[in-house]
Amino acid sequence: MADTFRHQGGSGDARDAGTPDPSALLPGLDEEQLRVLRRVGRAWKRVSGDPGVWRRALPVDPDLGRFPSPEEIVPARFDRLVPISALGGQPPAGETTAGAEAPTSRPGAVGHRVRRVVLGAPLKSTAIAHERMRKLVALPVLSADALSSVAYGPEAMLAILVLGGTAGLGYSLPIAATIAFLMLAVGVSYRQTIRAYPHGGGSYIVAGDNLGRVPGLIAAAGLMTDYILTVAVSIASGVAAITSAAPSLAAATVPIGVIVVAALLAGNLRGIRQAGSLFAAPTYAFILAVFALVAVGLFDAAGHGFHPAAPPPLHATEGVGVLLVMRAFASGATAMTGIEAISNAVPAFEPVAWRNARTTLTWMVGLLIALFAGTVALVHLDGVVPGARETVLSQLAHRSFGAGPMYIFTQAATAAVLLLAANTAYNDFPRVLFLLARDDHAPRMFLRLGDRLAFSNGIILLSVAATVVYVAFSGETASLIPLYAVGVFLAFTLSQAGMVVHWWRLRDRHWRKSLFFNATGGLLSAVVFITAGITKFTSGAWVAVLAVGLFILVTMRIRHHYDTVGRALRLHPCAIELPMHTIPARGPALPTAPGNGAGKSAETEETPEEIHHLSVVPLASLDLAGMRALAYAASLQQPVLALHISPGEDEAERFRGYWSQWGDHLPLEVVVSPYRAIVAPLVNYIEALHRQRPDLTLTVILPEVVARHWWHRALHSRIAPRLRRTLRPLPKIVVTSVPFHV
Amino acid sequence: MADTFRHQGGSGDARDAGTPDPSALLPGLDEEQLRVLRRVGRAWKRVSGDPGVWRRALPVDPDLGRFPSPEEIVPARFDRLVPISALGGQPPAGETTAGAEAPTSRPGAVGHRVRRVVLGAPLKSTAIAHERMRKLVALPVLSADALSSVAYGPEAMLAILVLGGTAGLGYSLPIAATIAFLMLAVGVSYRQTIRAYPHGGGSYIVAGDNLGRVPGLIAAAGLMTDYILTVAVSIASGVAAITSAAPSLAAATVPIGVIVVAALLAGNLRGIRQAGSLFAAPTYAFILAVFALVAVGLFDAAGHGFHPAAPPPLHATEGVGVLLVMRAFASGATAMTGIEAISNAVPAFEPVAWRNARTTLTWMVGLLIALFAGTVALVHLDGVVPGARETVLSQLAHRSFGAGPMYIFTQAATAAVLLLAANTAYNDFPRVLFLLARDDHAPRMFLRLGDRLAFSNGIILLSVAATVVYVAFSGETASLIPLYAVGVFLAFTLSQAGMVVHWWRLRDRHWRKSLFFNATGGLLSAVVFITAGITKFTSGAWVAVLAVGLFILVTMRIRHHYDTVGRALRLHPCAIELPMHTIPARGPALPTAPGNGAGKSAETEETPEEIHHLSVVPLASLDLAGMRALAYAASLQQPVLALHISPGEDEAERFRGYWSQWGDHLPLEVVVSPYRAIVAPLVNYIEALHRQRPDLTLTVILPEVVARHWWHRALHSRIAPRLRRTLRPLPKIVVTSVPFHV
Repeated sequence: MADTFRHQGGSGDARDAGTPDPSALLPGLDEEQLRVLRRVGRAWKRVSGDPGVWRRALPVDPDLGRFPSPEEIVPARFDRLVPISALGGQPPAGETTAGAEAPTSRPGAVGHRVRRVVLGAPLKSTAIAHERMRKLVALPVLSADALSSVAYGPEAMLAILVLGGTAGLGYSLPIAATIAFLMLAVGVSYRQTIRAYPHGGGSYIVAGDNLGRVPGLIAAAGLMTDYILTVAVSIASGVAAITSAAPSLAAATVPIGVIVVAALLAGNLRGIRQAGSLFAAPTYAFILAVFALVAVGLFDAAGHGFHPAAPPPLHATEGVGVLLVMRAFASGATAMTGIEAISNAVPAFEPVAWRNARTTLTWMVGLLIALFAGTVALVHLDGVVPGARETVLSQLAHRSFGAGPMYIFTQAATAAVLLLAANTAYNDFPRVLFLLARDDHAPRMFLRLGDRLAFSNGIILLSVAATVVYVAFSGETASLIPLYAVGVFLAFTLSQAGMVVHWWRLRDRHWRKSLFFNATGGLLSAVVFITAGITKFTSGAWVAVLAVGLFILVTMRIRHHYDTVGRALRLHPCAIELPMHTIPARGPALPTAPGNGAGKSAETEETPEEIHHLSVVPLASLDLAGMRALAYAASLQQPVLALHISPGEDEAERFRGYWSQWGDHLPLEVVVSPYRAIVAPLVNYIEALHRQRPDLTLTVILPEVVARHWWHRALHSRIAPRLRRTLRPLPKIVVTSVPFHV
Repeated sequence: MADTFRHQGGSGDARDAGTPDPSALLPGLDEEQLRVLRRVGRAWKRVSGDPGVWRRALPVDPDLGRFPSPEEIVPARFDRLVPISALGGQPPAGETTAGAEAPTSRPGAVGHRVRRVVLGAPLKSTAIAHERMRKLVALPVLSADALSSVAYGPEAMLAILVLGGTAGLGYSLPIAATIAFLMLAVGVSYRQTIRAYPHGGGSYIVAGDNLGRVPGLIAAAGLMTDYILTVAVSIASGVAAITSAAPSLAAATVPIGVIVVAALLAGNLRGIRQAGSLFAAPTYAFILAVFALVAVGLFDAAGHGFHPAAPPPLHATEGVGVLLVMRAFASGATAMTGIEAISNAVPAFEPVAWRNARTTLTWMVGLLIALFAGTVALVHLDGVVPGARETVLSQLAHRSFGAGPMYIFTQAATAAVLLLAANTAYNDFPRVLFLLARDDHAPRMFLRLGDRLAFSNGIILLSVAATVVYVAFSGETASLIPLYAVGVFLAFTLSQAGMVVHWWRLRDRHWRKSLFFNATGGLLSAVVFITAGITKFTSGAWVAVLAVGLFILVTMRIRHHYDTVGRALRLHPCAIELPMHTIPARGPALPTAPGNGAGKSAETEETPEEIHHLSVVPLASLDLAGMRALAYAASLQQPVLALHISPGEDEAERFRGYWSQWGDHLPLEVVVSPYRAIVAPLVNYIEALHRQRPDLTLTVILPEVVARHWWHRALHSRIAPRLRRTLRPLPKIVVTSVPFHV
């Protein structure tokens, strides 16, 4: 799938998926394009001859030499003068206080200031290099997602099992064991991925590389639903941790969640670096808390010889069967979501990135299994069952610590780590979008790096989607879980399958071992995916499936559009050599007229000599604005035709009179519009001219009175903008507006 | 106030206020302007020499001679090809099925079709002449407003008097007599106006002509509040007539009213001609019904020797005093609203318009007095008092006709005539706006004649305002009345006062008589105005007063803006002769830089030689669109500078590489934007160029990729439009977009 990366242009290494790359917006030219470019250049030489002519003709100093002098820069309209300062390319000191774009309106300026306060000063592209993390920082930041799953995974499993009553609960330990093994297998499997993709092997990359475009897109779809749900579920479960400690807040579940998303949005728009240092603590706190919890619990249990306490009497609502167990398994498997985070983010590690990443991954999986196993064991020993009002973890904490400070600490740490988990999604979601956009499967806007070197657009999109999901399910973890598992394990499966193919192709040193590990991981993931898909289809999985389907459709359409545009935009020596199939892609079809429809009328001129001009100047009256437009048109030394639309013959006569008074310097055509319409006849006339001479490039030169305040616009006819809008879809019609400021 | 009409341009006769005038949108040039025009022309001769050169250079046949041939016209984009058809100026047969403007989008096309169905085919400007009315049509159409007032005037008066109990009712006859006299006086007074203003003497014209601009505007304000309230009150009272007959509908008062406004809107957008014939009947029916009612009533009364029946026992809530009587008088005076309608609409009569108008006015006043007096007399004789559920007229009808068909007929006729009254306002309101706009006191858009030769914008504005008022007062006549009287009599007073001045200046044959009549009318109107203003101020009149005040403020501001623009746009031989005070009015002030701020940098070039060019071509990449833009720029034979914004040094280098591969034909400037912004650096650079050489006209040539469907826009960077928006306010920067269609 080499062509999958056709568009990543400047980013160099085809695999460098991790580091965001500002130049991705500027695709490079391939060899063939360069060849054509040179040919076109030779064609130009015939016309414009020695380039020096043009340079000598230039009436300004393009480097702005000593101009403007620094003190003149200061009052300029935009507070980011970087490129045009006298210091030549380098920004003047302290010139970093600017927004991404220049606010012109007053409200714009206000929003601009607000943005500065919330997001801080913009960062230079060169700052990207510094955005690396030490292992001890990377571990908490990247494993928050996986570890925090312990807060809802076991509970989700038990919530299903209790339906089978005490008998059902009996299955908790074997299921937990299976999941723990699954974690191990997938963990090992991802270690292989990291080795193979030292520049970051997200499921999208791996699947796309090895299985082809569509599997890649499916994996991406799975990942993105996963990330959206990670945010929703983590926040839901984090809020549950809080409300377990302070039940009075239970009513405010939804608003609290929304506020949290807003906070995450702001924080991530500021960029990741603060994130690292800021986010290390809570994860460690959570690990500490859970270990303490388990330790104390086991100690107590040791007191009565590890004899499990009897759970409260339960009446089974369902019979215990394979289906129930499978559902419990699928729900419990959500405890391993986020295990892939590290393999996506390899480049975010300090060099040697891939080795550090691997070590961190090992640590993470170890911790994950320990925490998960410990929790489940304790649940079993204490005979805890999930309740509506209080989370299982909170119940355990109550039993181990009572209601003292340790309990509070546990709940706080849990809530905190869950919010960080949501944050992990904020690191990954935009990156996947970036990769999709780089492969033309998502709008280019997701290639843009914001002021703070974060993919602002992706971050905003994620926030919106997560909020919608969270509110739609009114922040209930239990009802979100079913959607969750599907996406995650879909991505896992495809990524592992991709790795299998990878090793099979590569056959490097001990490829068999790696292939085996990945095969196991993939197989197991596939099992979970299918289980989840089947058992939870009606209870919400169908949403995820539908989302994936739509995603594939849209992304394919987008790619198709960009390909069309790309083909249309490619340089080609001359219109005739144009591949025929691209012609219909040019402008709306015109009624076939003599000499029309051929390449001649297509917009394919590449050299000055190919362009034949006619300027049309629509005039309402002979005032200064109109006169300037005429002067401008005439000064271009090209044929000019003045055009006046008149509501009646008398007015037409009057205008012709003025014209001859002026001296009749330019050819004038007066069009009578008995229906008082202005735009329609103008456009019709211009279209007729185009049909008459499809080879001409018509330049419509509009005198445009620019009012100073927006509320003045209502006082002026908006002909110019309307005309521009109407002429837009027509081929070979250039619109020039000559402004006149009052 | 000659200058009040400075702008009416094509309309010729300064007094021709009635006939709407499409050419009003195209002001003519005064003598001084023409002189300057000739001077500018001579300046051009020096440059472009023999005009023939340009004509010979023209590559097309501007008359489109045999092109396009008729069969080619058919598939053209807009269904109104009038001016460019092969038939030369005349529309091809059956070419009248078009909208005012061309729909480009699909929804646009739908709305277009709907409009055709609702409004019918557009009319040619030449159709205006036919829009005249016979006396027998004009009487009902124009007097509906006045006559229908009988339906609420007396009731409004009585509603106040009953507050004084039986004693209060005693005053009904004397007050009625006074009002009748007032009607006579004002009627006679308006006869003078018609004689003096054969082309239509609305209060605005008369007051403006004779008293000055501000009084004219005050009169206009009074009129316009009057018209808005006429619509609201008439509909409210018309609905009351219906609900009196069918009390079950009382709940739906507001929705019914809104529907009626919508119907009036549609009807009037179709234009007045249908109105005439359609609207004659109900007025006659109403006259007939009331006369029959009064006749029967008097006959019954004659039975018991005209001895008034005792009204039901009333307990007075207020003492009977001067204030009460005055309030009753002011309320009752609303019975004469609309009496001015005819004098506004003189040109709508068949020739000899003014004589026909006069006769019609006499007839109308006669009928008005008769109906009013008859009603009040009958109320007195039958001892009827206004009730909440049933209108007075309905009560009278019940007594005279029982509940039989005659009763139904009366109520139906009343309702119908009241709707027509509302329609009268629809004829006058837009006309006043047209006059205001012609004098630059209202937005020019009110000069535009719609497809159907109606002032669509004014009609729409009236509908909106009336709906707001009607809904705000939940369609209760009683609560609308207080706002009503003020505006009406304000306009009356000023118009009469204007006439007094007029006669005093003119001193033609029997000017004394006319002056006396107008003086009396004016004096009496003033009394009513003041009475209403004082007695009803708290109960709603203040709204009207406030509205008038705001109106003056806004209209004066608008005039000021148009004057500024007008001055700025006037031709002047050369920039130096520019009056200094207009310079600040040009564009945003720039930081003063060498050679800037002087006339040089003002947008005052009127001849080609004055314009010195530099084209700047911002390039994102060297694709076909960019190449065409370069070719276009170079083909203009003017200095060109290519500009590339690069996110980093590497990309900059890469682009320079491409450039030299191409052959380095044009000077290139690469600007590095370390903050990844694009628009801001571009604009800053262009501004810097402008500061460097303020005398240059910078043409920014934008390659613009035009996507075929709007939903594709999200997939392309919207740089070009944003750049255009940001460059708009800057002086001497021409923006050219070279479209490339995919």
